[in-house]
Amino acid sequence: MSQTSSPGPARMQKTSIATVCLAGTLEEKMRAAAEAGFDGIEVFEPDLVASPLSPEQVRDLAEELGLTLDLYQPFRDLEGVPEEQFQQNLRRLEAKFQLMRRLGVDLLLLCSNVGTATSWEDPVAVEQLRRAADLAAGYGIRIAYEALAWGRFVNTYEHAWSLVQQADRPNLGVCLDSFHILSRRGDVSGFREIPGDKVFFVQMADAPIMLMDVLSWSRHHRNFPGEGGFDLVTFMRELYATGYTGPVSLEVFSDVYRQTESVRTAREAMRSLQWLDDAQAGDTPAHPTGWDFAEVRAAEPSDLSEVLTQLGFADRGRHRTKDVHLFSAGAARVVTNDRTEAPLEHAGGSVIASVGLQVPDPRATAEHARALHFPKAWRANRADEMVLRGVQAPDGTEVFLAPTSADAPQWVGEYGERDAAPGGDVPGGDGLILGIDHVNLAQPWQWFEEGVLFYRSLFGLAAQVSNDVASPQGLVRSEVMRTPDGAVRIPLNLIPHGLDPGRSSDTRSVSGHVDHSELRLKAAYPQHVAFLATDAVEVARRARARGLRMLPVPSNYYEDLAARFGLDEGFLAELREHDVMYDRDEGGEFLHFYTRTVGTVFFEVVERRGGYEGYGAGSAPVRLAAQYDLDRQ
Amino acid sequence: MSQTSSPGPARMQKTSIATVCLAGTLEEKMRAAAEAGFDGIEVFEPDLVASPLSPEQVRDLAEELGLTLDLYQPFRDLEGVPEEQFQQNLRRLEAKFQLMRRLGVDLLLLCSNVGTATSWEDPVAVEQLRRAADLAAGYGIRIAYEALAWGRFVNTYEHAWSLVQQADRPNLGVCLDSFHILSRRGDVSGFREIPGDKVFFVQMADAPIMLMDVLSWSRHHRNFPGEGGFDLVTFMRELYATGYTGPVSLEVFSDVYRQTESVRTAREAMRSLQWLDDAQAGDTPAHPTGWDFAEVRAAEPSDLSEVLTQLGFADRGRHRTKDVHLFSAGAARVVTNDRTEAPLEHAGGSVIASVGLQVPDPRATAEHARALHFPKAWRANRADEMVLRGVQAPDGTEVFLAPTSADAPQWVGEYGERDAAPGGDVPGGDGLILGIDHVNLAQPWQWFEEGVLFYRSLFGLAAQVSNDVASPQGLVRSEVMRTPDGAVRIPLNLIPHGLDPGRSSDTRSVSGHVDHSELRLKAAYPQHVAFLATDAVEVARRARARGLRMLPVPSNYYEDLAARFGLDEGFLAELREHDVMYDRDEGGEFLHFYTRTVGTVFFEVVERRGGYEGYGAGSAPVRLAAQYDLDRQ
Repeated sequence: MSQTSSPGPARMQKTSIATVCLAGTLEEKMRAAAEAGFDGIEVFEPDLVASPLSPEQVRDLAEELGLTLDLYQPFRDLEGVPEEQFQQNLRRLEAKFQLMRRLGVDLLLLCSNVGTATSWEDPVAVEQLRRAADLAAGYGIRIAYEALAWGRFVNTYEHAWSLVQQADRPNLGVCLDSFHILSRRGDVSGFREIPGDKVFFVQMADAPIMLMDVLSWSRHHRNFPGEGGFDLVTFMRELYATGYTGPVSLEVFSDVYRQTESVRTAREAMRSLQWLDDAQAGDTPAHPTGWDFAEVRAAEPSDLSEVLTQLGFADRGRHRTKDVHLFSAGAARVVTNDRTEAPLEHAGGSVIASVGLQVPDPRATAEHARALHFPKAWRANRADEMVLRGVQAPDGTEVFLAPTSADAPQWVGEYGERDAAPGGDVPGGDGLILGIDHVNLAQPWQWFEEGVLFYRSLFGLAAQVSNDVASPQGLVRSEVMRTPDGAVRIPLNLIPHGLDPGRSSDTRSVSGHVDHSELRLKAAYPQHVAFLATDAVEVARRARARGLRMLPVPSNYYEDLAARFGLDEGFLAELREHDVMYDRDEGGEFLHFYTRTVGTVFFEVVERRGGYEGYGAGSAPVRLAAQYDLDRQ
Repeated sequence: MSQTSSPGPARMQKTSIATVCLAGTLEEKMRAAAEAGFDGIEVFEPDLVASPLSPEQVRDLAEELGLTLDLYQPFRDLEGVPEEQFQQNLRRLEAKFQLMRRLGVDLLLLCSNVGTATSWEDPVAVEQLRRAADLAAGYGIRIAYEALAWGRFVNTYEHAWSLVQQADRPNLGVCLDSFHILSRRGDVSGFREIPGDKVFFVQMADAPIMLMDVLSWSRHHRNFPGEGGFDLVTFMRELYATGYTGPVSLEVFSDVYRQTESVRTAREAMRSLQWLDDAQAGDTPAHPTGWDFAEVRAAEPSDLSEVLTQLGFADRGRHRTKDVHLFSAGAARVVTNDRTEAPLEHAGGSVIASVGLQVPDPRATAEHARALHFPKAWRANRADEMVLRGVQAPDGTEVFLAPTSADAPQWVGEYGERDAAPGGDVPGGDGLILGIDHVNLAQPWQWFEEGVLFYRSLFGLAAQVSNDVASPQGLVRSEVMRTPDGAVRIPLNLIPHGLDPGRSSDTRSVSGHVDHSELRLKAAYPQHVAFLATDAVEVARRARARGLRMLPVPSNYYEDLAARFGLDEGFLAELREHDVMYDRDEGGEFLHFYTRTVGTVFFEVVERRGGYEGYGAGSAPVRLAAQYDLDRQ
C-alpha cells in the first residue's frame, strides 16, 4: 500500500495492528500479522505480560518476521494527580521505559486519566505531561497522548491536543483514535489545527452504531474499518490533510475476533485498511449492475426442479458436461445440482452455493478481489466453455462475475440438448417474473462482519441499518447490503448461536476454499432467492394451479393486516387465498409470497409497487414461525 | 403458590407468563407454561399473528391446558394524537377488542405512546384514554396503561397513574412493569399512592445492570427474577402494600431464552417467581456453612492422584464399593474417579462432576430443591453407606448436601482399607492447607442465568458484579456467587461461544439427569478447585520438591508486578521461583499458584492475608494464556 505517486490523493504509508485485535498467544498474533502483510504492530501490554517470551525474544521475533514494534500501550492514570502520587507514577513510567528499551519500542501510548484524577486543572496536567516527556527523552522515547472517550477530564482530542501544545515538548504528541473520537460524534475537521508531525500515532476502528455506554461499546463491539457504521473516510481525509505520514494502525476490541482464528482475522484486518485507503482516495469499486444467476444445491434436487417449474420457470436443460441444470424466468436464472451431495444430505439441509453478479468489468473486479486477498472461487471448465471468474465470500458462498448485459449470458448456451439462442426469446416466468430481486444469505456469527466488508469493499454495496427478527429459535440480526439503485440487494442474516452446528471456530477455514463444514454451517439455516414479479398474486395463482404448495400464512396475519391498513375486503381475500403477504409505507406497496423450503432453501416472489424499498415489515417472523412449524410436522 | 394464610406476609395469588418469554410456536409456549404450572399467560400479539391457531383454537387450548388468558399485548401509539389520527386508532383498537372477545381475554395492555405523539398535553391524552376505556367497556374489556421506559412523553408509572386517575374510568388502570420502572431507577415507594384495585396487571423481569439505551437493554437482556441485578424484593413488597392480589406475570425478552428449549425455560421462569415470592416474604434459604468435598472426573485419573499427592494431599484410599478414591488435606476433600470415563475421554477433557456443600439442615435444603423443581442428583448406595441428598445444578454439576460439621464427615469412613477414624487426626496437607476456598465452574451460555438463580434460590448465595476476562480464545464473563461470610464461593465462568462444542440447544436436557453431552460441554473449558492455605509459598515449595509441575508464570508478569506494587526484591524472587502470583488491594494481600491442568481441570492454592476478598486481579488472563500455550505444545 506504500504508493508514493505524488500528485494523486494521499495514501497510507505504513500499516500496523494492535495485538489485542487478534486471538491466540503473542507469538501467534505476531506471526498472523506478519503473514497478513502488516508492516508493524502495537504491543498491547496484557499480551506481553501473559507471554512466555522475554522482551528481547519479542524484539528478535519481530525482526525475524519483518515487523516493526510501533507502539507500546497502554499507560494509564498518569497526569492531573497530586505531586506525591505523580512521583509514584513516574517510577511506574520509568519501569515501562526500561521495558520498552529492551523491546526496542520508542513510542508509548498514554491514555487520559480515568481513575486517579479527582480534581483537575489543565496547568497541573500540562506540567506533569512535560515532566513525563522529559523523563522519556532520556530514554529516546516519545509519548502519544490519547483522549479516551470516557476520560474523566480529558475526553476529546481537542483537549488532549491543547495540553500537548502547552506542554510543548518535541517528544510529546497526540494519538488520534477513530473510536474515541467518532463514538462521541467528534468533529474531525479540527484535525486541521494539528500539525501532522505532532500526530504521533493513529488508531483505526469501526463500530456498529449502538446506544450504550461508550466503554462497553469500545471493549466489546469495535470492528474493522468498513464493517461498521463510522465515517472513517472523512476521518482519513482530514488526517492526511494534517500532513501525517506515520503508521495507520488498527485497534479493535471485539468479542468475535477475540475467538476466531488469528491468521484469518489478520487478513481481514489488512483488507479493511486496503478498503479504507482506497475509499479515502475516492477509489471505489464499480457497483454490480444486476444478477447473473443463483445456484442452489439441495439434498433432493428433484424437489427444487418441481418448485421452480411450478413458479413458471422454464427447464433449460442439463449442462453439457456438469451435473447441473438451468431454470429461467425472465432474467432470473437458477442453476440446480442434479445429484445428491453427500455432505448436505448429512446436514439435512440445502444451500445457496453460488451467485453470479453482473459487473461492468469482470476482469477488473477479479483483480480487485485478488488484491484484497479474497480467495478465488474455482470451477473446472472445459476449453470450449465460458470461464467465469469467481471469488469466495467469507461464508463460503462463491460469487461469480459476469459482464453487464441485458441479454441472456453466453454460458446459457452450454445448457440444453440443442444450442440455446443467446439473448432473443428467453422462455419461462409467463412474462410475469422479471429477474432476481434479492438473495438472502445465512451468516454464521463468526463471519458476519467479514461478509459486510466483502460486499462493501469488492462491490461497493452499502449496509442499511440492521434490524432484529424474532424467530421461534432465537433473534436473527439482519442487515441488507445493496447497490444505491437496488439492482443488487443481499440481506445477510446472522444465525442465532443456538442453531450453530458444531464447534465452529475449527471450521473457519484459513485455506481459502469452501469446505464441507462451511456449507454445513450455512445449510443449518433458511436462505432464499427472491424473484421480482410484475404481479405477485397472478404468479401465485398460476403456480398454485401447477400444484405449488405455498408457505401457509396464518389467518391471524390477515386479520392483523386488516386492523393495521384497513384494506379493501376483496383485495384482502385475494391475498389470503394465495398466501400473499402485504406491506405498505410512504414509498409504496409490497406484495410477496414464499414457497415451502426444499431442505433449508426456499424461494420468494415479490412485487414492488411505487417506491417501496423494504422487504415486508413484520412478515419475516411469520415466515420463520411457519417454516419452523412445518419443519416439526 | 396460592397460600392464603392470613397473618403472614402477602403471597403471590396467581402466576402468569408472557408468551414472548419462551421459544417455539404459540402452542409450544402454551404447553410449556402449563407444564411448568403457570396459572395463566399473556398473549403476545406477534406470537398470535404467526400462529396457525385461530383465536378460538387458542382459547380452547388454554382451557384444555387449564391456563387463563390474562392479558392481550401490546397495543401501541394510541393516545396524545390529533383527533383524526385518534379516530383511526379507535378503529384499530376496536378490531383488537373483537379479536380479544374471540380469544376470551378481557384485559388489554396499552403502552404509552412512543411513535405517533409529536406534541403533548396531558388533558388531551386523558380524554383519549377515557374514550378508549368507554369503547372497551362496551366489550367488557379493561385497559391496563403502562409507561414504557422509552415512552415519548409518558415514561414513569407516576405519570401513567396520574393520567389514569384523571381519566377516572372503572375499566382503566395501570400496569406496573419492573423493568420499565427499575431500569430508570424509579422509586417504588410511590406504589403506595395507587389503590391495589387500580393496578390491573404486574409484569416482572430482572436484568443485569448495564449501561446501554434502555430499549436495547429491554429487548435483549431481560432475565427472570433472581437472575439479574434489580431489587425486585422491594418492588414486590411495595406492590403488596397497595393491596394488589392480581396475577404476577413474567415478561422477559431475552436473546438466550428465545433460543432455548421452552419447557425448561418455563420451569426456570416458574422457579424465579417461587424464589421471588419467598424472598419478598422474608423466607430466605440458610446459607451453606462450608465445603464437604469436590469430585473430579478425568480421562486420566492417575494424573489427578499424582497432582493431589504432590500438593500434600493424603491418599485416603478407594471407596468400599465404588470406583472412586478420596484425597484429603485439612478440611479439603477431593474425590476422584478410578477409571477412565468413555464420554470424557472422547471430549478429551475432565470435569468437576459434583461438589458437596455443608448446610445446617440437608433435609430442608433437599425439600426446598424439590419445591423449586431442581432435579435430584442420584447415586446408587449400599444400605450401610451414608445417603447423601443431592440436587443437580443447571450445568449438570451435582451438588450434594451434608450436615454442617467441624469434624470429618461420616462418609469418609467408607474409604480406605481399614475404618478411618471420623474426625480426629485427618492427615494430609502438611498442616498448611485448611480447606476448599472456591470452586470455579464453567457454564455453557445457555445455562449461565439458570446457574445464578440456582445458587441464589437454593443456597442464598449472592452474585457479585461480573467482570470480563480476556483469554486467547475469547472473553470469559465471570460472576462469583458467594455466601456473605465467604465460606462458600463459586465463580461461574461463561464459556465463549467459539468453544461451545456441538449444537448445544439439543443437549439442553429436559429430563433432569446429567447426560454425557452436558458433561461434554463442561469438559470443553477449564474448571478448578482452589484450596485455602496458610502459606502458599511453602505449599508450592514442598509440592515442587515432590515433583509438581506448576503452571508456569511468565517472567513478564513479575516485571509488571514490580512496576505496579514496588515489592521487596527478595519477596518477588520467591514468588517468581515458585510461580506464585500476587495481588493487593485495600483489604489485604493474595498469593496463589496453579497446577497444570489434568484434562481441563486444575487446582489452585490460595493464601488470603488480611481482608483480601478477591481472586487475583489480572492473574486470570495470564493463567488462561499459559494453559492455552501448554495445550498447543
